[in-house]
Amino acid sequence: MNQDPAHDPGSVGLVTTQAITLFEQGEPLRLDSGAALGPINVAYETYGKRNSDSSNVILICHALSGNAHAAGRHHAADTKTGWWDGYIGPGKPFDTDRFFVICSNNLGGCDGTSGPSSIDPKTGKPYALDFPLITIGDMVRLQRELLKHLGIHKVLAVAGGSMGGMMALQWVLDYPDSVSGALVIASTPRLSAQNIAFNAVARQAITQDPDFNHGNYYQGPKPERGLSVARMMAHITYLSEKGLHEKFGRRLQNRENFSFALETDFAVESYLKHQGSTFGKKFDANTYLYITKAMDYFDPFPDPETTARHLKSVNARLFVMSFDTDWRFDSSRSKELVRILNLHQKNVSYQEFHSPHGHDSFLLPDHEYQLSIATFINRLYNEHMRRQPQKDSHP
Amino acid sequence: MNQDPAHDPGSVGLVTTQAITLFEQGEPLRLDSGAALGPINVAYETYGKRNSDSSNVILICHALSGNAHAAGRHHAADTKTGWWDGYIGPGKPFDTDRFFVICSNNLGGCDGTSGPSSIDPKTGKPYALDFPLITIGDMVRLQRELLKHLGIHKVLAVAGGSMGGMMALQWVLDYPDSVSGALVIASTPRLSAQNIAFNAVARQAITQDPDFNHGNYYQGPKPERGLSVARMMAHITYLSEKGLHEKFGRRLQNRENFSFALETDFAVESYLKHQGSTFGKKFDANTYLYITKAMDYFDPFPDPETTARHLKSVNARLFVMSFDTDWRFDSSRSKELVRILNLHQKNVSYQEFHSPHGHDSFLLPDHEYQLSIATFINRLYNEHMRRQPQKDSHP
Repeated sequence: MNQDPAHDPGSVGLVTTQAITLFEQGEPLRLDSGAALGPINVAYETYGKRNSDSSNVILICHALSGNAHAAGRHHAADTKTGWWDGYIGPGKPFDTDRFFVICSNNLGGCDGTSGPSSIDPKTGKPYALDFPLITIGDMVRLQRELLKHLGIHKVLAVAGGSMGGMMALQWVLDYPDSVSGALVIASTPRLSAQNIAFNAVARQAITQDPDFNHGNYYQGPKPERGLSVARMMAHITYLSEKGLHEKFGRRLQNRENFSFALETDFAVESYLKHQGSTFGKKFDANTYLYITKAMDYFDPFPDPETTARHLKSVNARLFVMSFDTDWRFDSSRSKELVRILNLHQKNVSYQEFHSPHGHDSFLLPDHEYQLSIATFINRLYNEHMRRQPQKDSHP
Repeated sequence: MNQDPAHDPGSVGLVTTQAITLFEQGEPLRLDSGAALGPINVAYETYGKRNSDSSNVILICHALSGNAHAAGRHHAADTKTGWWDGYIGPGKPFDTDRFFVICSNNLGGCDGTSGPSSIDPKTGKPYALDFPLITIGDMVRLQRELLKHLGIHKVLAVAGGSMGGMMALQWVLDYPDSVSGALVIASTPRLSAQNIAFNAVARQAITQDPDFNHGNYYQGPKPERGLSVARMMAHITYLSEKGLHEKFGRRLQNRENFSFALETDFAVESYLKHQGSTFGKKFDANTYLYITKAMDYFDPFPDPETTARHLKSVNARLFVMSFDTDWRFDSSRSKELVRILNLHQKNVSYQEFHSPHGHDSFLLPDHEYQLSIATFINRLYNEHMRRQPQKDSHP
C-alpha cells in the first residue's frame, strides 16, 4: 500500500492541528462543578470544505486517550494516520468531498487543549491537581464555544465512540437546536459499577506511584509506571476474550519453553507491556485521572424525572451502534439507551455489528459498520436539504 | 447466630494449624522446572476423625490467596471462620462426622508452607526470588508427600475451586491410583489469553512498585501498594457485573453529591480500595507472583497426544461444577474440560449452578451446590464400601 498521502485517494492527506484560545476576555467557562475556567486553549483539526451556510459540518468526538488528529497525516513520513482515518476522508463514511469534519482535543486533555498539564496563567506553572474537575457536559460546552467561534451554530451530526459517544449524546441533550443527528457508538448512558471499579483501580495505580507526587510531577520523573499499569488493565477491557484468544492464545513469546523465571513467557504479556509502556510515556497521568472521573460522573438519565427533563426538547435523529463482542460497554448498554429514547418517542435507530475486536471495534475498519454510518449521514443531509429547498448549498 | 464454636453444631469448632517439615533428609523435592527444593515446611489442618483404614480422607485444595485454615476458628473470639467453613463441618457437604478432611497451605504460599518469604536454610535469609518457580504439579506433589507422611496412600476425594480445582484435576492425572474422586469447581483446564493478561498486569503492578526491590523487601517496606492494585483488579474479576450492580450500583459513598475532586465518590471504589489495602498488608507479594505464574503454566491438555497420555490411567470419578455468572472461569471452560474427559471415556458429571456472585460463588453457601457436593461425596464413599465389603470400616 502506498503510504504517500498525496497518492492515497481515500486520505485527507497532510493536515495541521490548529490552536485557538477561548475565554481570554469576558466571562470564563462555567463548569458543572461550579468552578470557572479561562483562558482555555483548544487544539482542533478540520477536514473538507465548509459550505457557505455551514450546513455540512460534522463534529467528531474522541474517546479517553484520543486527540484532535482524527484523520490524515501530519508529515508525509508519518507511519500512523489519525485515529479514525478509516472513517474520515474522500469517499469514506464521513466523506470529506462533501462534509466539513472537525475534531478537537477534549477539555482536560493533554494534546493541545487545556488540561492539568497546561500552564495555569495565574501561577505560570502547570495546573496539575489545581485544574478543576470536569464533566462530559463541560467538554461539550467547550466544543460548542469552539464552533461558535468558527461561526458554526448548528452541526449536521455529532459522532463518537465510547466516551465520544457520551459526548455525542450530551450534545443532543444540551443543545437540541444545534444538532440534527448523533452517532452514539460503543457507548453507554452511564458507567456500571464494574466500569467504575476498573477506573478506580486505574486511578489507584497512578496515584500510588511514588512519582505521582500529588500530581506535581511535571518537573521530575512522571508516574509512568502507574499509568502503564492502568493502561494495561484498560487495554484488556478494550479487546474481546475471543479476540485475545485468536490473536495470542497461549503462544509463547520468543521462546520454545516456559522460562521458569519471573520473565515474560506469553506473547499476550509482551504485547500488553509494550502497550502500557508506550502509553505511560506519551500520555499525561493527571489527564487520565480527570477523564476517567468525568466518565464516572456521566449519568444523564438517573431517574424518570431527570430523564424526561433532559429529553424534553431533543429532536435530533440518533443512531446507536454497538458491537457484539464489546464487554466494556456491551450491547445491553446501547439497548438501554435505545429503550429510554424510544420511551420518550425520540427518533432513534439501533444496530449491533458483529466483530471479533471487542470495544476497539469502533475504531477499526468494517464494511457494514462503515456503510451504516454513511447511510445515516447521507440521510441526515438529504433531510436537511429537503427542509431548506430554497437554498443552493449542495456540498 | 451464636458465634461460640462450642455451641455451633455445624462447626468443626476450635482448630489448630499444624506444621511439619518434609524433605529434611534424603532426596529433595524434584520440581517441574528441574530445580530441587528441601527442606520444605508444610502447614495443614485436619477436621474429623480418620478411619482405621484411612478410607474416609478428603483433601481440600485452596485457591490463589487461601491457606490451610479451611474450617472452624483458631480462637473462640475469631469473628471469621476458615475459608470454606460453609462446606466443612458436622452435617455439612464435607461431613466431619463421617470424613477426615485435610487442607494444607500450597507450596509457594505465605501462610506456613515454604514459599518465597520463607527462610532459605542455605543463607539464613528469606528466599525471595531465589525460591524456584513452581507449578500446579509441584503443589500437588508436595501434598502427596504430606499425605504419605501421615500414612495416607489413597484419598476418597480431592476437592477445590478455582486454582484448587486445577490441583484436584492434577491429582487425578498424576496419581490415578491414589484418588477415587475429584471435585473441580469454578475452574478451567487452562488459562485463556485474557486470564494470563490480567495476571501479567497484576505482576507488573507488583514488580513496578519501588518497594518491590527485586523481591528483597522483607527487611524494609513491602510493595503493599502494587499488591493492593493487583488485588483490586483481580477482585473485579471475582465478582459478576450483575453482583456488583446489585451490591453497589452507582451509589455514592458517604456523600450526597459528587466530590468534584479526586476523591472516592462511589461505594464500589471504597469497597475495592478497602479490599486491596487489607490484602496488600497481609499477603506476600512474591507469593502472588509465583502462584499466578503457576496458574499461567497450567495446561495438562495442550494437544491430543499429551491429553491422551495424561488421561490414559485416570479412573477417578470427576464432578465438574461451574457458576453461570462466573466470568473469570466461565462455564464454557468447565464444559471444555467435560468434553475432553468424555472424549476419553472418563467418568465425569457436570453441573452449572445459578448464582449472582460470579467466580466467588464457589466459596459462598448455596443449598443446591452444597447438596450436589454432598451427594457426590456420599456416592464415592458408598462405592468404595461396596468394593471392599469384607472390611468393617463404616465411618
